[in-house]
Amino acid sequence: MNKISIQEVATRDGLQIEEQFVPTDQKVDLVNRLGAAGVDKIEVTSFVSPKAVPNLKDAEEVMQHIERKEGVTYTALIPNVKGAERALACEADEVNLVASVSETHNLKNVRQKVDDSFANFKDIASFLSGSGIDINGTLATTFGCPFEGSISEDRVMTLIDQYLELGAGGITLADTTGMATPNQVFRLCGKVLDKWPDLPLTLHFHNTRGMGLANVVEGIRAGVTRFDASLGGLGGCPFAPGATGNICTEDLVHMLAFMGYDMKADLDQLIAISKHMEKEVVKHEVPGQIIKAGKITDLHEARS
Amino acid sequence: MNKISIQEVATRDGLQIEEQFVPTDQKVDLVNRLGAAGVDKIEVTSFVSPKAVPNLKDAEEVMQHIERKEGVTYTALIPNVKGAERALACEADEVNLVASVSETHNLKNVRQKVDDSFANFKDIASFLSGSGIDINGTLATTFGCPFEGSISEDRVMTLIDQYLELGAGGITLADTTGMATPNQVFRLCGKVLDKWPDLPLTLHFHNTRGMGLANVVEGIRAGVTRFDASLGGLGGCPFAPGATGNICTEDLVHMLAFMGYDMKADLDQLIAISKHMEKEVVKHEVPGQIIKAGKITDLHEARS
Repeated sequence: MNKISIQEVATRDGLQIEEQFVPTDQKVDLVNRLGAAGVDKIEVTSFVSPKAVPNLKDAEEVMQHIERKEGVTYTALIPNVKGAERALACEADEVNLVASVSETHNLKNVRQKVDDSFANFKDIASFLSGSGIDINGTLATTFGCPFEGSISEDRVMTLIDQYLELGAGGITLADTTGMATPNQVFRLCGKVLDKWPDLPLTLHFHNTRGMGLANVVEGIRAGVTRFDASLGGLGGCPFAPGATGNICTEDLVHMLAFMGYDMKADLDQLIAISKHMEKEVVKHEVPGQIIKAGKITDLHEARS
Repeated sequence: MNKISIQEVATRDGLQIEEQFVPTDQKVDLVNRLGAAGVDKIEVTSFVSPKAVPNLKDAEEVMQHIERKEGVTYTALIPNVKGAERALACEADEVNLVASVSETHNLKNVRQKVDDSFANFKDIASFLSGSGIDINGTLATTFGCPFEGSISEDRVMTLIDQYLELGAGGITLADTTGMATPNQVFRLCGKVLDKWPDLPLTLHFHNTRGMGLANVVEGIRAGVTRFDASLGGLGGCPFAPGATGNICTEDLVHMLAFMGYDMKADLDQLIAISKHMEKEVVKHEVPGQIIKAGKITDLHEARS
């Protein structure tokens, strides 16, 4: 069986929508613990306007104070060349670009047409050329759009191509609002890996409608080996108040470990960090289930 | 693709552990609404001692007052011949027997050895012989035991055989505390259906560790077409306070409908009944995600 890479997004995708600003030293501490727990990649923060995302206004400080673990990729989301300059100054290993497959969602999310996003990405790629920073291209709403509904698979293929042409080394297919179904994941990922067999392809699922881990299983069946997840399931979906957000890192690692998959990430450490995050950092209940239920192997005493 | 049967357990597996007794007329109303929504089977109640399960002390009244919808199987859990007498008097279509594969769990659950449970089941089968009531045999802790851990697949096969020998027409493999993993489900169900290709085999999953719907997908891949589920995800796990219980009926039907599977159950009606149950019957939040997030096809307006 293939080795699976676990890519943590809680400090970006999770903390950006928390009601309270999480202090910089707690963010740094979370990233350091996650690196020590053996996750393969950490999306540390996002170099966007502090006005747009005040929770991540300390992006530079976080990036500058984290410990860099050997073998962990420290990535940051960037929206434009300004963000690329900041990421370069902070020596991010990778930048993550995001465009939506859906025009309506892209307009809502970044206030420009998809073509304009890609024109912007070309400028970023030119700017970063020779810098040694890798580029990952994320396609939001790949499996469905909360405004437009179904998404054309041909358009997904075209936009992957555009990302690769401008120099992206990896692609993330994101199910931004939890609309992917397991057979859709299997079919589309099969199509993508048929065309680009060596593509470092990541799946980014939300568990909004309970299908997150089922989608992972079908993604693996199609050949995908890299998954984004968020500690404790932190994150959410603006269109589904009360619904869960990103798939939960420790729930994902728990399932894959007991299915026999090899991962660098350490389940017990992740569970401990998630409990710490719930109690000491975000200070509210998080959707993760393993921190409530325990591992399959946590047996109980049969008191009569 | 095969037609999938949806078998509702909320009024038994869910209501039995509610803190408040749900009035008889509300139970009857729930069963009637579920029948009208097109579920294939309803585990209406359980003919156990009212001392053991006070929430279901009105088993007779519920069974006698429900409307019987054509094409719906009305089943009841029974522990012994006394229960069989009560089920017969109430004209249940089927009785559901439960033994654990794990000796320790069986001792804890029904205070007898597994062999004694099966001796008991033989008496029940003799008593019901010729009555026209079908017998379903459930194996609890099939995929793992919270006390013993791993469960031998050979022992599962042996106990299925014992159920069939005493005249059970169907078998349910129950993941009582949410320990099944997707590849385990695929492997074991494949083995069972290889040996008994025409067996009416039901899978009963709990979503305690987030793997419930992934396990359904892998069960279907192995050839299973019948699934227990609980409206709103009502139910729970005594070993995991705060964790979710049974997989949620409307979340299950939502996933399968958007995967293209044919079912008699109507998703919109189930969502409406679940919202009603949450607000008017159990009066607390339930774990179901579709009643929070909406269906994939519930699109949002793109206000700027």
